[in-house]
Amino acid sequence: MEEELIGNVLVAQSGGPTSVINSSLAGVITEALNHDCIEEIYGALNGVEGILNEELIDLAEESQQTVRGLRYTPGAALGTCRYKLKSEEDFSRVIEVFKAHNIRFFFYIGGNDSQDTANKIAEHAAAQGYDMRVIGVAKTIDNDLFGTDHCPGYASAAKYIATSMMELYQDARVYDKGMIVVVEIMGRHAGWLAAASALASEYGAGPDLIYLPETDFSMPKFIEDVKKVYNATGNCIVAVSEGIHYEDGGFVSEAKVAATDGFGHAQLGGLAAILAQVLKEETGAKVRGIELNLLQRCAAHLASETDIEESYMAGKVAVENAVNGINGRMIGFERGVQDGKYACRTKLIPLMEVANVEKKIPREWINEEGNGVNRQFIEYALPLIQGEPDLPKQDSLPRFAKLKKVLAK
Amino acid sequence: MEEELIGNVLVAQSGGPTSVINSSLAGVITEALNHDCIEEIYGALNGVEGILNEELIDLAEESQQTVRGLRYTPGAALGTCRYKLKSEEDFSRVIEVFKAHNIRFFFYIGGNDSQDTANKIAEHAAAQGYDMRVIGVAKTIDNDLFGTDHCPGYASAAKYIATSMMELYQDARVYDKGMIVVVEIMGRHAGWLAAASALASEYGAGPDLIYLPETDFSMPKFIEDVKKVYNATGNCIVAVSEGIHYEDGGFVSEAKVAATDGFGHAQLGGLAAILAQVLKEETGAKVRGIELNLLQRCAAHLASETDIEESYMAGKVAVENAVNGINGRMIGFERGVQDGKYACRTKLIPLMEVANVEKKIPREWINEEGNGVNRQFIEYALPLIQGEPDLPKQDSLPRFAKLKKVLAK
Repeated sequence: MEEELIGNVLVAQSGGPTSVINSSLAGVITEALNHDCIEEIYGALNGVEGILNEELIDLAEESQQTVRGLRYTPGAALGTCRYKLKSEEDFSRVIEVFKAHNIRFFFYIGGNDSQDTANKIAEHAAAQGYDMRVIGVAKTIDNDLFGTDHCPGYASAAKYIATSMMELYQDARVYDKGMIVVVEIMGRHAGWLAAASALASEYGAGPDLIYLPETDFSMPKFIEDVKKVYNATGNCIVAVSEGIHYEDGGFVSEAKVAATDGFGHAQLGGLAAILAQVLKEETGAKVRGIELNLLQRCAAHLASETDIEESYMAGKVAVENAVNGINGRMIGFERGVQDGKYACRTKLIPLMEVANVEKKIPREWINEEGNGVNRQFIEYALPLIQGEPDLPKQDSLPRFAKLKKVLAK
Repeated sequence: MEEELIGNVLVAQSGGPTSVINSSLAGVITEALNHDCIEEIYGALNGVEGILNEELIDLAEESQQTVRGLRYTPGAALGTCRYKLKSEEDFSRVIEVFKAHNIRFFFYIGGNDSQDTANKIAEHAAAQGYDMRVIGVAKTIDNDLFGTDHCPGYASAAKYIATSMMELYQDARVYDKGMIVVVEIMGRHAGWLAAASALASEYGAGPDLIYLPETDFSMPKFIEDVKKVYNATGNCIVAVSEGIHYEDGGFVSEAKVAATDGFGHAQLGGLAAILAQVLKEETGAKVRGIELNLLQRCAAHLASETDIEESYMAGKVAVENAVNGINGRMIGFERGVQDGKYACRTKLIPLMEVANVEKKIPREWINEEGNGVNRQFIEYALPLIQGEPDLPKQDSLPRFAKLKKVLAK
């Protein structure tokens, strides 16, 4: 039996915010209180930047109500960063701060880059003979982490996208004269989010066409596809991933745009605006380009309860594993079946396998023409968005948790 | 005592869709069933266009479940139009269709233009000696109808805007480096919708600055305002009405934009993109322009139950009044107090007073600098957004009602 490690916890968040990243934080804090080998529970402000700057807060100072409220609070309560640890100095500094605060358990909640960072921190600690455990907690609305069935954060974004698509469908068809709507959805390298719009199609209220980064985009084929639907039905709703690209790899959003306005500004519209303009000229129809903006990653009011619970579980399980001696792993998910229904349990994935790999939608889940997804995707995604959270509200508006952020001594 | 009028009902919807316009429709249908003097209940497809084209459907054919579901279905179940009746021929045709189908009670659910149309139809019927009653039912997210405390549809849009603003606030502050966010909100001539973002400020999570069409916009003052907030706090969230304009009346969204891109397209970005670009150059900060798109008028999942109930009541009361001999009036709202709480009852406003008048936010509800609203606005708007509807769902996605649309014989 392995010798018990005693010391402090440090938890941090990294990358883009999600609706449920704070639920994983709540899971870490709550579980950490259960273990005698854990003395203090610290949080680093703004990811690794908070470690470098020794900005650590004492999470034990936070009220139980706040910790409970984190489950329903979007954003990133500890703050986040895009900074990547670069130099040997950076890593030495991190280990130095860990030593100074007797950090023996480090939990990093984040996506691809963050898991890479966690992996390197674990390696540096080992190289220096500093005994500690590093566990990553998967998080990304992009759903593109390797080795896990799905990622915390994805389902809530997917639910927002599917619901919004159903409502836009209602809106876009009220006039006697048809309309073409192009909806731009996040996803630079993988199309999981844009594909989620197909969940609305299940009930006849989704996009007619979906374009993903998993296949090459052709403008002439796109125009032909839209014309076909529009001419047949008088309407057309299109969902596009922001990362759609031509065969040569060039992003459609960046291609052939050299516009300046009267001030000498660069062209201001995004992908949706570009495609809407092309379709306006090609069809003469009324066309509207809509960008589902930041709300798709922070609309906690439409979070999936399944996502909230799983994210919380991921945080808890990360602590359980760390105190049990596990190191250098990310908490991911494995899908199973229980009583004939979707079930999810955690799994451990080596950080070095996760780091910098992107998981895309399997080609066979996308139709042959590359303008839609099939039932395999629906069966994959639908269980993930289930369940309505009981959101804390006051005056019919959300009540989010806010950390006091008492600096650690 | 007045002679009883016996005949058929026709109801139609017009103008932009809202989250609750169908709730008013449900109110009309449900109440119409209660009166023996009403024989058939017809709906015109796509507003007055459906009358001109004699496209009337038999609403008695719809199931009770569908009618109940209309309360929670955004869009416009009958379809809508932007067509304005223009000529004497148009109006003669309308009365001709009314006569052919023995329409004695006409209900038009819509905004400014629609109330004008309803008024003219009532006048033409009277001029021709055709005995009928015409009642308008207020509807507009813009909240700019004269004579009514507020308009059905406004509160649900306001709730969506306030909630989205609170979530964006969480999202926009997660990085250590601050961000400026410009959120563009609907409202061409009145700022009621953009002002609703201030409801989020009540809980410290709203925009720092709000610009409305009720005051003149000055670009130098705007830049100064934003810089002041950004320099002091490292962040700034700005809400703007799409209809903000310079002192000379020119829309900011249209001013000085003559850009073309490589294809020869006109400038594609909207107001948010324009202002974001200006701020980027002036501050060097990270700036994001966000357009709250069509969702603000169709996001039924965030509808106000108060709005749904009041809209339903407006439809019901329209029928009650019509059968009681009222003609040429719009159903609006009067605010009162019951048991110390907000209460709302209907009132009758002459259609000719409503037609083509726009109600703006009182100047004294806007701060002196013209970049925010005060408590009077909050006290006005907050009661309207209260209550959570029990939305019909399946698989955690909305289930909207869909009319069978059986053509009337």
